[in-house]
Amino acid sequence: MTETRIRFGILGCANIARKVSRAMLLSPNTTISAVGSRSLNKATAFALENHFPESAKVYGSYDAVLDDPDVDAVYVPLPTSLHLKWAVLAAEKKKHILLEKPVALNVGELDTILEACESSGVQFMDATMWMHHPPRDIHIPSHQPKLSTQNFHIQKMTETRIRFGILGCANIARKVSRAMLLSPNTTISAVGSRSLNKATAFALENHFPESAKVYGSYDAVLDDPDVDAVYVPLPTSLHLKWAVLAAEKKKHILLEKPVALNVGELDTILEACESSGVQFMDATMWMHHPRTVKMKDILCDQQKFGQLKSVHSNFSYKGEGDFLKNDIRVNPNLDSLGALGDQGWYSIRAILWANDYELPKTVTALRDPEYNELGVILSCGASLNWNESGKVATFYCSFLSNLSMDIIALGTKGNFRVHDFVIPFNEKVGPFYAVANSRWAELSTGCVPEPSEFKITTDLPQEALMVQEFARLVEGICNGEAKPEKKWPILSRKTQLVIDAVITSIKNGFEPVEVVY
Amino acid sequence: MTETRIRFGILGCANIARKVSRAMLLSPNTTISAVGSRSLNKATAFALENHFPESAKVYGSYDAVLDDPDVDAVYVPLPTSLHLKWAVLAAEKKKHILLEKPVALNVGELDTILEACESSGVQFMDATMWMHHPPRDIHIPSHQPKLSTQNFHIQKMTETRIRFGILGCANIARKVSRAMLLSPNTTISAVGSRSLNKATAFALENHFPESAKVYGSYDAVLDDPDVDAVYVPLPTSLHLKWAVLAAEKKKHILLEKPVALNVGELDTILEACESSGVQFMDATMWMHHPRTVKMKDILCDQQKFGQLKSVHSNFSYKGEGDFLKNDIRVNPNLDSLGALGDQGWYSIRAILWANDYELPKTVTALRDPEYNELGVILSCGASLNWNESGKVATFYCSFLSNLSMDIIALGTKGNFRVHDFVIPFNEKVGPFYAVANSRWAELSTGCVPEPSEFKITTDLPQEALMVQEFARLVEGICNGEAKPEKKWPILSRKTQLVIDAVITSIKNGFEPVEVVY
Repeated sequence: MTETRIRFGILGCANIARKVSRAMLLSPNTTISAVGSRSLNKATAFALENHFPESAKVYGSYDAVLDDPDVDAVYVPLPTSLHLKWAVLAAEKKKHILLEKPVALNVGELDTILEACESSGVQFMDATMWMHHPPRDIHIPSHQPKLSTQNFHIQKMTETRIRFGILGCANIARKVSRAMLLSPNTTISAVGSRSLNKATAFALENHFPESAKVYGSYDAVLDDPDVDAVYVPLPTSLHLKWAVLAAEKKKHILLEKPVALNVGELDTILEACESSGVQFMDATMWMHHPRTVKMKDILCDQQKFGQLKSVHSNFSYKGEGDFLKNDIRVNPNLDSLGALGDQGWYSIRAILWANDYELPKTVTALRDPEYNELGVILSCGASLNWNESGKVATFYCSFLSNLSMDIIALGTKGNFRVHDFVIPFNEKVGPFYAVANSRWAELSTGCVPEPSEFKITTDLPQEALMVQEFARLVEGICNGEAKPEKKWPILSRKTQLVIDAVITSIKNGFEPVEVVY
Repeated sequence: MTETRIRFGILGCANIARKVSRAMLLSPNTTISAVGSRSLNKATAFALENHFPESAKVYGSYDAVLDDPDVDAVYVPLPTSLHLKWAVLAAEKKKHILLEKPVALNVGELDTILEACESSGVQFMDATMWMHHPPRDIHIPSHQPKLSTQNFHIQKMTETRIRFGILGCANIARKVSRAMLLSPNTTISAVGSRSLNKATAFALENHFPESAKVYGSYDAVLDDPDVDAVYVPLPTSLHLKWAVLAAEKKKHILLEKPVALNVGELDTILEACESSGVQFMDATMWMHHPRTVKMKDILCDQQKFGQLKSVHSNFSYKGEGDFLKNDIRVNPNLDSLGALGDQGWYSIRAILWANDYELPKTVTALRDPEYNELGVILSCGASLNWNESGKVATFYCSFLSNLSMDIIALGTKGNFRVHDFVIPFNEKVGPFYAVANSRWAELSTGCVPEPSEFKITTDLPQEALMVQEFARLVEGICNGEAKPEKKWPILSRKTQLVIDAVITSIKNGFEPVEVVY
């Protein structure tokens, strides 16, 4: 926390002001001391809805904000035609100005505003937010003297950044690229595609650093000495070949899930990694969300959760448009595991996670899985058993149902639920719901306590936390301080073993299949 | 809706005023036209938070409310020491007065207030809420001249009340007795127990009407000509005998669940009911909550839900204290179905309900059910299949896990969740969560829309709505206007058939069992 906080006044209750108000409350060196609107009721409601500090004042006019001695700077989200009047007035009242864009109706108006600022010695900045996004390299032309990020909070830069190469331009790679740019200890040094044009466009569209190289092949990425680690979002059927090659080239590997078509393939990959001494991790992003840690704390709490008795998880989303015809996830030559590999992977991981990664003794597929005409699974499920203490788990995954992402875990003393476990609805806040030691109310007309909502915030999206953790492990290996972390390949292998068992159970007429590590 | 609505003004923003404001918005003959506080901001916030109509005015003083010609009556939740001043002023301004209790610091002050009311011809009432609770018989002594319910909305009293007899003093019968007293078309005319003392104590403790008879046997209840219908909360193993006897005595039957030990027994009961022409209904309370209707509306909505693909339901609660040793639900001679009959009944009903009561083609028990040493089920589950379009359902029930009561239903276009489907956490408000046509946000960093919370309020608890509906059917039969409604025995039988199939599947080594009506 900075000791000095610049106190903002806000002119008007424009919609955009909601977002910027939140920013003022989030930033460590700012606060909000006033808001003014032509309607006092509107200003009051705005302050309430946007969680202004109790000390903030609400006014029924803009003038009152400018006259408030507790206002250091004003943010002006008024309609552009009002900028000239109110920005000049603000400057005359010695208020620094953060002005929404477009800043004026024409350059003549803007000049009048800038002259007023200069003559009053106040700072002027327009509200072009993306200019302040930290991890990208922004080249600010020297003739824009006042533009600076120095007033804004930027995540501390780590000196060492692990340099990623990316194999292929899959859709998911856009999100993970962003994560590599957001994470403080990673950068992107290369991307390869079978088409150089595609790789070039991908680098541009995803704001790769100018230093990043683009290649017309995957091999070239593996041969690049400036690549420390590769991210492999290729179709599953290509994982065996490229992950093994990458390991042989001593590249650490972040591999998209499902990691392989079966555990045999995965073992070949893992052996290559082990023999080369490189880190392996699958890209199961939700494992890295701080919410996942908090939920695990609940699961491990003997008083608030007790012994785990049952878990149910479902992950579904509707394959829209041509997804069910053309997506790689329904193509038997590319991703023959279909919904089981794509969605079931997460639900199976959730069940293992809740069971402290203890493999089930048996897996029994649910009847009536659905397939496309090429034999790829579109929906399926299974029950998992540990042959002890009645513990049971079920999951369901589907390309044919509307989006759902639930875990319900029941313990002897408590339970918890989460409804967006794979990808939080909101990137910055992950909620979950837990309750312990429930009892019926008098006459069983209700029960107490009601489940509580826990909201876990995160500064970085879960995929950025994933690449950050991966890079941390890689850095330790590169520095000679650590060996590859074995937890991650073991979790991948256990997940893959359950996937294989579901496939086998379906083939064997839904009989239970034993699972052995 | 009443055409004339009395317009309330509220003096102050006391905590209790939140509840009474809600009441003014709920009552069909009132509305809120103003609120005043010494702080305008506080009044504005209060109006917003309590969902006042947009037309409501907010004032920074109490005087302004009294001067408002659009205010017919004032509600005064101010501190008691301010009552004298503001109630007298209100009376002088010709405002009717609803005054919070205690109404004054002493009877002298109250007399001054009452004189002001009398001289202005305005109505005075204190805010003793329970005086207005409709179904109980309230004897208002004649020396309380002003106390009246005439300004408040009271549920219409039905002239005919179906007279219940109750067999046994089970714990659950306390709640259902209360329901019979709350429901406007029922009353209790008798209770029988093997112990006359127990029956007498039960009638007293549960506030039975003075006219209710208490008997030392079940037979006596069945022989009482003042009993129209019986409620049977006896242990399941006694249902066959007493339900058949009741039907033979021409008593309509509200039967606790599980209705029988197996479908053979149930069929004997249903045949007796049919041959006597009496109504049969099982006591599955949540079926009668208005929330259940709203959720069904979603399930049937082709645009917001589409085709049902998957349902999961779990109901569990921890058997505390000596429950696992002594409760009838774990006694093989009384309730041999254990958790399956007690809890599984609800989850199975939920699955049938979501499937428009279409029976599954097969039922397959989940492995590892738990038993007590006498062979009664303490936890179990099953998967249900319809052998079509990949539709699948799973459920889990347990006496060994903390309380949970979930349904998750997935459709091709939407889904919904409810987390207290059996007994709402809050007796008056049942929430559920639904979302439709979800899609990934840009870069799949989230998804939109987020699920919406729907809160369904009810004036009567679900068990009172159940006995009300049962009594409505009985009244139709008694009047000769209708035959027994067949829907309810059919639903009971379908639920029992699935229970039987789960038992058979467990016995057959978890093989699928065909279900045929």
